[in-house]
Amino acid sequence: MANPSPGNSITLRVMAPSNFTVTSELATAVAAAGAAVTALDVTESRHESIVVDITANTTDDAHADRVKEALDALDGVKVLHVSDRTFLMHLGGKLEVVPKVALRNRDDLSRAYTPGVARVCMAIFEDPEAARNLTVKRNTIAVLTDGSAVLGLGNIGPAAALPVMEGKAALFKQFANVDAWPVCLDTQDTEEIIMIAKAMAPVYGGINLEDIAAPRCFEIEKRLREELDIPVFHDDQHGTAIVTLAALRNALKVVEKKIQDVKIVVAGVGAAGNAIIQLLIAQGATNIVACGRNGSVHRNETHIDEHRAWLAENTNPDNFDGTLHEAMTDADVFIGVSGPNVLGEEQIAAMASNAIVFAMANPTPEVDPVIAARHAAVVATGRSDFPNQINNVLAFPGFFRGLLDAGVSDITPNMLVAAAEAIANRVSDDELNASYIIPSVFDPHVAGDVASAVAAAAASNTTERTQS
Amino acid sequence: MANPSPGNSITLRVMAPSNFTVTSELATAVAAAGAAVTALDVTESRHESIVVDITANTTDDAHADRVKEALDALDGVKVLHVSDRTFLMHLGGKLEVVPKVALRNRDDLSRAYTPGVARVCMAIFEDPEAARNLTVKRNTIAVLTDGSAVLGLGNIGPAAALPVMEGKAALFKQFANVDAWPVCLDTQDTEEIIMIAKAMAPVYGGINLEDIAAPRCFEIEKRLREELDIPVFHDDQHGTAIVTLAALRNALKVVEKKIQDVKIVVAGVGAAGNAIIQLLIAQGATNIVACGRNGSVHRNETHIDEHRAWLAENTNPDNFDGTLHEAMTDADVFIGVSGPNVLGEEQIAAMASNAIVFAMANPTPEVDPVIAARHAAVVATGRSDFPNQINNVLAFPGFFRGLLDAGVSDITPNMLVAAAEAIANRVSDDELNASYIIPSVFDPHVAGDVASAVAAAAASNTTERTQS
Repeated sequence: MANPSPGNSITLRVMAPSNFTVTSELATAVAAAGAAVTALDVTESRHESIVVDITANTTDDAHADRVKEALDALDGVKVLHVSDRTFLMHLGGKLEVVPKVALRNRDDLSRAYTPGVARVCMAIFEDPEAARNLTVKRNTIAVLTDGSAVLGLGNIGPAAALPVMEGKAALFKQFANVDAWPVCLDTQDTEEIIMIAKAMAPVYGGINLEDIAAPRCFEIEKRLREELDIPVFHDDQHGTAIVTLAALRNALKVVEKKIQDVKIVVAGVGAAGNAIIQLLIAQGATNIVACGRNGSVHRNETHIDEHRAWLAENTNPDNFDGTLHEAMTDADVFIGVSGPNVLGEEQIAAMASNAIVFAMANPTPEVDPVIAARHAAVVATGRSDFPNQINNVLAFPGFFRGLLDAGVSDITPNMLVAAAEAIANRVSDDELNASYIIPSVFDPHVAGDVASAVAAAAASNTTERTQS
Repeated sequence: MANPSPGNSITLRVMAPSNFTVTSELATAVAAAGAAVTALDVTESRHESIVVDITANTTDDAHADRVKEALDALDGVKVLHVSDRTFLMHLGGKLEVVPKVALRNRDDLSRAYTPGVARVCMAIFEDPEAARNLTVKRNTIAVLTDGSAVLGLGNIGPAAALPVMEGKAALFKQFANVDAWPVCLDTQDTEEIIMIAKAMAPVYGGINLEDIAAPRCFEIEKRLREELDIPVFHDDQHGTAIVTLAALRNALKVVEKKIQDVKIVVAGVGAAGNAIIQLLIAQGATNIVACGRNGSVHRNETHIDEHRAWLAENTNPDNFDGTLHEAMTDADVFIGVSGPNVLGEEQIAAMASNAIVFAMANPTPEVDPVIAARHAAVVATGRSDFPNQINNVLAFPGFFRGLLDAGVSDITPNMLVAAAEAIANRVSDDELNASYIIPSVFDPHVAGDVASAVAAAAASNTTERTQS
């Protein structure tokens, strides 16, 4: 990834000789070092010297160092301090827990706390369902991880996963007014995680499982869905499947192909890959080749893992036995939920005409999107700094808003499809083009549309159940 | 408890015939039914009828019903609706989780979430201590309960305990800007609770154990203090002991007695009772009689429970063997951390002259404070609707503020004493009298003084350790 990114934005505080051209010389030096200047402020000006804050996007930490060195090398210039804007944003954490009620005087305290609160406690003790109205359970979900598969970074553990879970919680609140709390567990034992999730459930109206490695995540999700009376969503599975289906629906419209006819290669057979493939098959896809680390999943070998066995039975109609690179030949669609840089230009060039490439590994995609765009008709990634960002944030806030509003206890497949359609429909036929197949994550209507669609799907489930 | 309380405040919406005297007739009827009118608003006025909202404090739900009936019995008057202000305050819960960072555009998202957040994750992966600066761990604690000993309500379970934990979290934020999150566990197994607390610890900078029954709470606290690197505070023990010591210090000044000389009866040998007795002995108390359900703890029998055995060895110098009622004779101080109405007027009358009565059971004290005040010189309760409220809220917010600011991993006895002194010192000698032995929970300086005292005690621990 050679492009400077706002995720690697730095601010350099620089002392320089005071003269008319110095600010432009500084900006030129930063640009010559390959960084993109986004702001320049003179913070102090004296007779002989000035102090300037230069903010610039860089590609990585080593690049930031080179930018600093480039400025220090200028005659009379000295970099006083370099601050990393991403780290500044994280200082002290990204969430706070705020009372919704004012506690100004004794009377307030008598109601919100003792002695008045005792009556509320007893009302819940006598009718446990009352907790949904009288406590945070009404609007609060857990964002639960064991830190075993964080972004594309792998098994970095619960403490290092926390900044992601905090960010996710911030998104839940900002986009759908769902209160979400990070639960980062210092255990990777399946039974312990299940036991803990069940034990802590009284506080929550739902659980969003996040960044838990496969196949453990499947067992955890399955058991919790069976054993809890609140909805359990695994974002890496369901969220990713929803946004991928939404994007694919619109991308296929752009290239004028049908889901029944296309050859789809999916790289990554973990949580996301499995859920995507299941949802695409349910929507009519007939020719999917799933590829793991050792190449395509086929029927020439026996699969002990039940998910792998299901894939072998239900995908790959030609029983293709080969590498991911080989599988790419003549593929219409590539969906990557694997790791960084597993494809090069050659493999994209070998795809069918009007190819669709979704390279969604985070933070580094399966193929450089700039290179992929030389050959594919539609290119999308999971990154916020390229067009066509296939980001779960389009799905999860509104999805949980709908679940909480409808008070449902289980997630059904028709809710996933309804959410995908709601997202895809935010791009009108007039607007739809190769660089705009999916709405912006800042589209203020997405979360509301998804919430309504999910609640409607929940209502139709209830109707069906009542009628049957 | 015959007094109407703001914890039982109701608002009655009443339709009545329109005439000049109707509002005063309504107010008179409410007062005649024993309720205290706090507000009266005409919300609608027509030619023939008016609608009035009357807000009044009542004693309990049955009393609220009687007030409604009294109004309905008036000629032409109809109560349209009764709302309970305590329940209204709890609708939807008392907390929300709010982002501290704005997510206005793609650049913000690139820094707070992917891809920028990956660099913050890796910084913590490489240096786990960085989590204290770069995540909510910096300022966040868990308020953890199993719902087994909630207020004076007993074992009502985790869901019914949640309103109390939410209230507690609101107090942490309001009084000391500590972010606190309720953890209500649906298990009462000691080992499971310990395992869960340890597993969830990566998110928290401290744990406040709350309303967990003795003796389980002792084992949980002991083990967590040994096995975790964040401070673990059991509010029912440490918080109660701090505020009791603070109040007793000032009450003894009022009656001009010394802690070394007084006979102290403690009712309740659970979490609070044990911690109070330990702290009072450490401060010089010599004659404490501890009473459980079966009367005084003495050395005429063998105690299997280690805490009971410790009490038998270290209290009751005369080895008094009798009931709580008998123990009260000639006592200078009564400290109740047991249950409602265990004492009557007779027992208070039997105490020594200038007696001190702390009846702290919640929500109903060990003895009616109005009755106790007929005989005792100083009376205090745990309630917010009487003078001298001995409330842990004076201690726990500032205590954790100090712990988080100092970054300590363990709580030491000198921190408890320092906190008690800081609270007691908020009442100056000029102000001190029998109705004002402890500062108001709304004293804006208490939390800051406690935090400073705890941080100073932590610093002196570090100095001692360095010198020895």
